[in-house]
Amino acid sequence: VLTFPNLERMAQWDVVIVGAGLAGLTAANQLVKKNPEFKVLVLEGKDRVGGRTVTLSLKAANGVDQWDLGGQWVGRTQHHVLELIKELELEIIPQYTTGTKFYQLGGAHAKISSYSSSIPTLSLLALIDLQLLLWKVDKLRKMVPPENPNACPQALKFDSMTVETFKQNNLWTQKSAKDAMDVACKSLFGIECRQLSFLYFLLYASAAGGLMPLIEATKWSAQEYKIKGGAQQLSELLADRIGRGNILLSSRVSHILQNKDSVVVRTEDATFSCKRVIVTCPPHLAAKIHYEPSLPSKRESLTQNMPVGHYIKFIITYPTAFWREKGYSGEIVCNGCFDSPLSFTFDATSSTGNPALVGFIAAGQALEWSQKTFEERKDGVINGLVKFLGPEAAAYIQYTEKDWSQEPYSGGCPVNVMVPGMITYFHPYLRKPCGSFKNIGFNRFLSFKRREYFLSSLTFKFQLIHFQDYNRIHWAGTETATAWCGYMSGAIQSGIRAANEVLRHINP
Amino acid sequence: VLTFPNLERMAQWDVVIVGAGLAGLTAANQLVKKNPEFKVLVLEGKDRVGGRTVTLSLKAANGVDQWDLGGQWVGRTQHHVLELIKELELEIIPQYTTGTKFYQLGGAHAKISSYSSSIPTLSLLALIDLQLLLWKVDKLRKMVPPENPNACPQALKFDSMTVETFKQNNLWTQKSAKDAMDVACKSLFGIECRQLSFLYFLLYASAAGGLMPLIEATKWSAQEYKIKGGAQQLSELLADRIGRGNILLSSRVSHILQNKDSVVVRTEDATFSCKRVIVTCPPHLAAKIHYEPSLPSKRESLTQNMPVGHYIKFIITYPTAFWREKGYSGEIVCNGCFDSPLSFTFDATSSTGNPALVGFIAAGQALEWSQKTFEERKDGVINGLVKFLGPEAAAYIQYTEKDWSQEPYSGGCPVNVMVPGMITYFHPYLRKPCGSFKNIGFNRFLSFKRREYFLSSLTFKFQLIHFQDYNRIHWAGTETATAWCGYMSGAIQSGIRAANEVLRHINP
Repeated sequence: VLTFPNLERMAQWDVVIVGAGLAGLTAANQLVKKNPEFKVLVLEGKDRVGGRTVTLSLKAANGVDQWDLGGQWVGRTQHHVLELIKELELEIIPQYTTGTKFYQLGGAHAKISSYSSSIPTLSLLALIDLQLLLWKVDKLRKMVPPENPNACPQALKFDSMTVETFKQNNLWTQKSAKDAMDVACKSLFGIECRQLSFLYFLLYASAAGGLMPLIEATKWSAQEYKIKGGAQQLSELLADRIGRGNILLSSRVSHILQNKDSVVVRTEDATFSCKRVIVTCPPHLAAKIHYEPSLPSKRESLTQNMPVGHYIKFIITYPTAFWREKGYSGEIVCNGCFDSPLSFTFDATSSTGNPALVGFIAAGQALEWSQKTFEERKDGVINGLVKFLGPEAAAYIQYTEKDWSQEPYSGGCPVNVMVPGMITYFHPYLRKPCGSFKNIGFNRFLSFKRREYFLSSLTFKFQLIHFQDYNRIHWAGTETATAWCGYMSGAIQSGIRAANEVLRHINP
Repeated sequence: VLTFPNLERMAQWDVVIVGAGLAGLTAANQLVKKNPEFKVLVLEGKDRVGGRTVTLSLKAANGVDQWDLGGQWVGRTQHHVLELIKELELEIIPQYTTGTKFYQLGGAHAKISSYSSSIPTLSLLALIDLQLLLWKVDKLRKMVPPENPNACPQALKFDSMTVETFKQNNLWTQKSAKDAMDVACKSLFGIECRQLSFLYFLLYASAAGGLMPLIEATKWSAQEYKIKGGAQQLSELLADRIGRGNILLSSRVSHILQNKDSVVVRTEDATFSCKRVIVTCPPHLAAKIHYEPSLPSKRESLTQNMPVGHYIKFIITYPTAFWREKGYSGEIVCNGCFDSPLSFTFDATSSTGNPALVGFIAAGQALEWSQKTFEERKDGVINGLVKFLGPEAAAYIQYTEKDWSQEPYSGGCPVNVMVPGMITYFHPYLRKPCGSFKNIGFNRFLSFKRREYFLSSLTFKFQLIHFQDYNRIHWAGTETATAWCGYMSGAIQSGIRAANEVLRHINP
């Protein structure tokens, strides 16, 4: 147990926020909006704001332009992000989806198929099979309330199986339909079907208002619009509002200590005291912080066991949008065909007309291709694109990629998910403020020397009662959202919710 | 990125070992045995040695005696622990199993059944059902090599399903047989069937030489013997051999930094330099250490996503072994019956004849009962025992328990397990030494400012080649064992293996 530091010589803050991604910056903005007197400090491990959004300047047909190497799309039902876009006076532009789309499912040497509507022309049998599955999933997800998935009558059953098990039990056409499910899971989560709880899959669809809005790029879907100039602007503009002086970059939080009056947050080289703390970083990073008293064990289990997805995202700029000229939309769905790592691609031409494609290497393929060299990956991607779109795909201006598993203080993208059993046992702790001193009593009791085991349990009980009201750690981040969990909109919702929780407890 | 410390003013060690449990102390002992000149330092977060073994003095019929609140049993096929017991001149005594055994499976109000052989008298149908399952599992586990489970021809299939899915697909009798599987899983891992990969279940059985040796307390099984005087003696005696001055207690490792010549290990208040480091703590605690350069992302995923089981173990001392007098062995198997948290119990009478019972609250029940008060748990346990063994069970001398989820620098017991998909994607990193400077190249490349994205990849490739030989972090702990993974014997095997790895690289 560390000595609780002397607070007198320390700067006092009302709220310290861990993480300067969308959740953290939204929370800070919400607090300052409610009361400009609030002293809010944001601590960020990275040397930039934006978390899992990052906008880069790349060489383009007409000089240089901006593209998103992280989160980029928004949809019309994503109210929280749309409101923020409006508040920050940014613009959205529609995702280009006109023209022929390609897919190749069913193994490395399956033939390429194309379609123009939003329904792919799989074989009739596969199509029926897949459609029945989509209907079934959509019916089931309506039974899963995003706030409390355990209220679903079949929650225990669905949380006891992987998405793979559900797929095997419900899809009969061997290759195409099953491959379609695999690609959907990889694309949505950066995680394979076999790693994910089926109940979590339903919860995720439920938080998005359906399964189709997650997958498609049409109206009402998650990939409907993109933000002109890039999504990282949201964070940059929020940071300006909060005041750059209140955001410390390159400041990894290593400790969160509580006593009955305050919280102390430590980084490698500084210590801050505050009334409440909001932890917004992804669970696997929150698990790296040393908490004293330790978190309740159910919260620890949750924090420690939500695997993060794996995306390698690439942007390729071109002199012309040759695919549009050929009548193609730029959309490709693919599952490890031609020994190419492509999972899915979209048109990414900028608002000023600089042609580009965007795409992802996801989940198991990302794990494998992450180990290869940059040149090997680039060649793999370009070779795949040439097969689908023609030889012009090789005549690019710049190929840029971001392997999110290698990004310091992210370690993965797009979202941390839940494995079987997690919802059943640990979901109630996802948003519950923590750091109860209940635990101190308990830990001390158990770490006493042998003779203490003879003590009556009276002391222990007294501590339980005396300390249990101090829950000064609040949780945000897109993983904790009930609307569009896993998306920018969810991150923003979670930041507002956490700020409101804090506001109920303190005044500056 | 932290500044690499100046090593000149720092004590130099050959090897630093993280964790003074059986794995860490065995590794230290092995190194010093091979060459007494070796400078080995063991750093331990707890204020004691022994890790997941702990022996306490409790009030007993004849004064005071010793009991194990952590790992306690050994079996005749557990060569590594038996050899250490011999080397340390300790004794083993057989587990008492004579007499009637009780079980209550099939729901809270099922009737109590009893049996005397090792085969419980379930209904004939349930018995056949369960026996077929055991045969099937035992046949399947033979196909899973403990060193490389992915070599099993059906590895992908089995790693895509939970144990619960396998159970549902292979057991038809509703209550008894399924409940028996549930109790087996809870008792073995402190984890529920729905949380575990079926391939991991097979791997675990394979590492133990079969499923029955895991479950039973008969000859050849894991619960055949106990160590006279308690299992923590193994660690205490090893610590004496290594030299207490070379073990620092209450020293939580917070950082492991590497450069091309050495490793630096930091605790809250000290810094140590060495040639190699062996990390022996459970994966979820290894995940809390800050590594620079960061670990390869596959190793990170493994470290971050192996949930630890949850045991609350209790020892109850009695004036007489009343159960023996009644012809009972003291063995009870139970799955949440009578609203009692009992999972399983055994006779725990000491070698000097002090009567006691030992038992466990496991997995989901442990999660739930962990939240109650000490008194509530005690009453729940005693009430359950009274129902099985008679009113004498209430006339105990002392009830002592240890909730391993609350134990600092353990956070759970008996073992960290693998969820679906983990073996498929991450198992090759379980024992692979890490900290490759390959990663530094990679990370630096990716964390460069925007302009660096225009750089040719030549620099990057050069770094890859130049740095890739420095894997100075070695992994031990029972989770990494190939024989009796999850047991004391596995911890010892892993310590010897890691020490031998290190010996191949350095001389004092």
